[in-house]
Amino acid sequence: MGKILRVNLSTGKIWEQVEDEGFLIKYVGGYGTAGRILYDEVEPWVEPFDPENRLIFTTGPVTGTIAQTAGRFTVVFKSPLSGYFGDTSCGGFWGPELKFAGYDMIVFTGRASKPVFLYVSDGKAELKDASSYWGMDARKVDRALKKDLGDPKLQVACIGPAGENLVRYASIMHDEANRAAGRMGGGAVMGYKNLKAVAVRGYKKVPVADEDRLRKIMGEVIHFYATDEGVKSFRAGGTPGYFATGWHIGDTAAYNWANEHWKEFDPETLSWPGGFEKILAGNRSCYNCAIACRRISRKGEGRYQLDEDNVEGPEYETQTMAGSICGITDIYALNKVNDLCNLYGLDTISAGSTIAFAMELYERGIIDKNETDGIELKFGNADAEIEMLRKITYREGFGNILAEGTRRASRIIGKGSEKYAIQIKGVELAAHDPRAFQGGGPHYAATISGGRHTEGITVVWEPLGVPYPEIGITSPLDPKTTEGKGRLAKLLEDWWCFINIGGWCLFSSDVLRYCGKMSYYTETLTAVTGVHFTVQDALLAGERVFNLRKAFNMRHGCTREEDTLPERLLKEPNRRAGGTVVKLEQTLPQYYRERGWDPEKSLPTKEKLRELGLEDIIEDLWGK
Amino acid sequence: MGKILRVNLSTGKIWEQVEDEGFLIKYVGGYGTAGRILYDEVEPWVEPFDPENRLIFTTGPVTGTIAQTAGRFTVVFKSPLSGYFGDTSCGGFWGPELKFAGYDMIVFTGRASKPVFLYVSDGKAELKDASSYWGMDARKVDRALKKDLGDPKLQVACIGPAGENLVRYASIMHDEANRAAGRMGGGAVMGYKNLKAVAVRGYKKVPVADEDRLRKIMGEVIHFYATDEGVKSFRAGGTPGYFATGWHIGDTAAYNWANEHWKEFDPETLSWPGGFEKILAGNRSCYNCAIACRRISRKGEGRYQLDEDNVEGPEYETQTMAGSICGITDIYALNKVNDLCNLYGLDTISAGSTIAFAMELYERGIIDKNETDGIELKFGNADAEIEMLRKITYREGFGNILAEGTRRASRIIGKGSEKYAIQIKGVELAAHDPRAFQGGGPHYAATISGGRHTEGITVVWEPLGVPYPEIGITSPLDPKTTEGKGRLAKLLEDWWCFINIGGWCLFSSDVLRYCGKMSYYTETLTAVTGVHFTVQDALLAGERVFNLRKAFNMRHGCTREEDTLPERLLKEPNRRAGGTVVKLEQTLPQYYRERGWDPEKSLPTKEKLRELGLEDIIEDLWGK
Repeated sequence: MGKILRVNLSTGKIWEQVEDEGFLIKYVGGYGTAGRILYDEVEPWVEPFDPENRLIFTTGPVTGTIAQTAGRFTVVFKSPLSGYFGDTSCGGFWGPELKFAGYDMIVFTGRASKPVFLYVSDGKAELKDASSYWGMDARKVDRALKKDLGDPKLQVACIGPAGENLVRYASIMHDEANRAAGRMGGGAVMGYKNLKAVAVRGYKKVPVADEDRLRKIMGEVIHFYATDEGVKSFRAGGTPGYFATGWHIGDTAAYNWANEHWKEFDPETLSWPGGFEKILAGNRSCYNCAIACRRISRKGEGRYQLDEDNVEGPEYETQTMAGSICGITDIYALNKVNDLCNLYGLDTISAGSTIAFAMELYERGIIDKNETDGIELKFGNADAEIEMLRKITYREGFGNILAEGTRRASRIIGKGSEKYAIQIKGVELAAHDPRAFQGGGPHYAATISGGRHTEGITVVWEPLGVPYPEIGITSPLDPKTTEGKGRLAKLLEDWWCFINIGGWCLFSSDVLRYCGKMSYYTETLTAVTGVHFTVQDALLAGERVFNLRKAFNMRHGCTREEDTLPERLLKEPNRRAGGTVVKLEQTLPQYYRERGWDPEKSLPTKEKLRELGLEDIIEDLWGK
Repeated sequence: MGKILRVNLSTGKIWEQVEDEGFLIKYVGGYGTAGRILYDEVEPWVEPFDPENRLIFTTGPVTGTIAQTAGRFTVVFKSPLSGYFGDTSCGGFWGPELKFAGYDMIVFTGRASKPVFLYVSDGKAELKDASSYWGMDARKVDRALKKDLGDPKLQVACIGPAGENLVRYASIMHDEANRAAGRMGGGAVMGYKNLKAVAVRGYKKVPVADEDRLRKIMGEVIHFYATDEGVKSFRAGGTPGYFATGWHIGDTAAYNWANEHWKEFDPETLSWPGGFEKILAGNRSCYNCAIACRRISRKGEGRYQLDEDNVEGPEYETQTMAGSICGITDIYALNKVNDLCNLYGLDTISAGSTIAFAMELYERGIIDKNETDGIELKFGNADAEIEMLRKITYREGFGNILAEGTRRASRIIGKGSEKYAIQIKGVELAAHDPRAFQGGGPHYAATISGGRHTEGITVVWEPLGVPYPEIGITSPLDPKTTEGKGRLAKLLEDWWCFINIGGWCLFSSDVLRYCGKMSYYTETLTAVTGVHFTVQDALLAGERVFNLRKAFNMRHGCTREEDTLPERLLKEPNRRAGGTVVKLEQTLPQYYRERGWDPEKSLPTKEKLRELGLEDIIEDLWGK
């Protein structure tokens, strides 16, 4: 749309910024542009909870077009969980709606003195009083805004009470609390800024350079989605369909990543096919997506009954990170945990991880009921998990400590508990165990945003074997070898960075790729923008933005020492993965070499920055 | 006392830590030890508003002995104003009382889930509910605690509403809001931690190695204080006695440092002798101080009447930084501003500076009544200043912006306002204009804590000419020359760092030195500790701690680029100082050379760190 909406929450001023075309091409717009804005405007002295922190809601160039899976938006900020570059993305309908309203992105600065929400309506934007919505859960405020603004098709991104109370892993919720921009505490930044919601509606058309070409490509993609067996299966089971597979290759964790070393766990209780079917009512799609992987849950009955039918069901990440790692085997309880996190506005990955961490401390006698406010915080105690979620959200007693995430909570608790905090750069690991695939080691250890699964987790190549023939990957790779794994991690990171910038869903790039070819993405982007992109251009753009984000981290105090993994993953073998640990000492030097980063400092070299056209930031990293 | 009290506000746990003797000798205890604790325990990812930030209340080795001026305490933390090493110190009686209670320092970690205060009573410590005190001003809570705990001699350090509301320059108040640990936002860190107050009482004796020797030295010092003409004059006029002198040499600023370029200002209205006499009721002393420089104010009458008689009157810093730089010429109004800042718990320097900054924007038409909530924010409008102090404290409207300090406020407001933000590393400058003495340039630009006057401001040598014969300074130095000024700044910084560590008041080291000799301090320290200290030992210890604090800053993201001054001081001549600007390009390279810091990176060299016995932090700064 060529325009950025700028909102200063401190002064109430709102203005439009016209985007620079050269800049757009260099950073491919969207998340790339947002990353550059964060780099340029947020100096090292700016804190995550700071009026000078930016909170950027961005779409990508394909968002809101007829491109398949073009429904996502990404939020960029300095993270209160890591202290470094923060980003989190979300499906649904909000991203396209922002484009229909006339904007590619919204950049928030400042901090309102009272609760407000932003209402963007077809090219007009205003800040409105949100005092009456403050305290509402994320579903309630979404519905209240639709009702009060008289527009049932309004698209809302908002926070629940967890964001208001600055829980460091509070999420930004969308689509009546059914979709989440979950990770790294974007919801807490919204809460700090006193921004309860961003409600958008618009009627503009997203311009496309070559509509015929785009229509033709999408015909092929939709045909592929309609007929491919993998897509069909994914439509039926969604991400929970991966749980049993992940379990058997050792990718899926249990008991705070101690896995079967703690006690046996029956994956059947949570998996699809399997126990998950008890709560599954059907599926649903995001904007313009023929995959339709979203789960719809039944309300159920009994102690774990939900408030209503047909709300979003747990994803694989939640199954694992709020389920198996807490030892939960009751699918109804998991369904309730998932729904509560959505209502409170909590990231299920970090919330579940933090509780699993506390459960291990409790089981080991490092903490007891005197510290947990009387709660018996044992593995498998779903009632305890549910109560802790509430206490975290409202920062009550022990919940006030867990609301800080595992890194800070372990420092507060002390007594050697740091070794049970399964986090990287303060961010709790997602549900992929790098002991099960050696490419995961350098990726997790060195990546910008800590323990994430959306930045290039190489399990898709080793051992799953999704073919990427255009870059020479045609068959499953041995997950146990270390040779070449640094290069692998770099390649996938660069590609996924490009996919995230473009505005596609990663599920279209991962197991469910557009007709199985990378070039379909660059052809789509070419058709949308009119600027010719090759796969090599895409990888280069991804690498550029990846390095820009890396530079942000290093300028903000991150060091080589933080490129590591929790001790457990380096020392305790994963039996289901064949008794392996992460051989980081072998793969990390490879990775630095492939990246062109100084191996002592984990800093992009001057040559690399020049190669990527980032010579203007050399001095920031290397001095004069 | 050999013991540190540790308090984890998140868990409520309290324990004692025995101090290591080698460590005590190396860092001279107190502020030096506290600096090392902050360096070791607060990693770069820890934010100022973070349960992992430390809040350390420390005494010095001489505190609570019969040594003259041994009544101070210092608070150390990562500053919410600068984002770097934060410290602030305070006179009164709290420091000695902590020693009488059995502790050298208190280290707070964590964050309480509800308001609490710490009650330390002769070797016992407990956290108590402070809900009923939350919201009270700093005088009210101090008196309420004395009453509720039934102890009129209780010593209280507390915050007012400004600290509760996380105003970034909220102070920590003491002695019924009559004394302040004012700078760098220690009060905001207390507020974040939900710590309303620290109340102490004790009956132990502070051990002294050689009581006879100490008594003999103090006999000489007290005789000097009783007979010296300079001390007599300072006793009569206090710091306000410097205002006219400072004005005439160009050290004292007006109109947001535009000085007479804005309009004429009559210093007589605020000075002593002069207008100040209208409000002056008498003087008062801190613990064990025969100087007794504290001012007592009359209540007065009319619109600027105080609530009561005999509260603390304005110091020179307040006269200037909340008076002349705001164009205030009404001494009654200044008295009211001073008292309100004390009650709210606001640093008068940063609060006044931030309002002066906004006044200049208003006068220049950069902002108008639409932005100031209808307030006519002109220079000299005392009613506007008083109203803004309230709005800042409660973060109402425009006050919510100014509550962030000049650096952040100028970024929020934009429109070129950054050039009117007179701050260094986010910290508003104290009332000494470095255009009036070239040694002030490199000192202000390179020092750890931004625009401070307690870190080695060389105006005492150039042009005031306080003699320090032991280091070759025997007569006033020409303030206009640049030669040797880097060395001068380093020398005084190291010495004052030592004085701050020891626990003396800087007024005993500055114009009112112990019988005019540096060796009196080291002899006092030797008598107290039984460890022999020479002046060279003292300078080395000061240099060690100075470099440790510097290392903290550089690890936490500070760069060479932040070693600079506001443009106004580099470009707009100060007429009263003879039409000079700060010649930083000449003095800063000298300073780096004298310090043994890399001039490109502003980083202590490996050689310098080794020389100071800080080889263990080389890797933190320089990598492997």
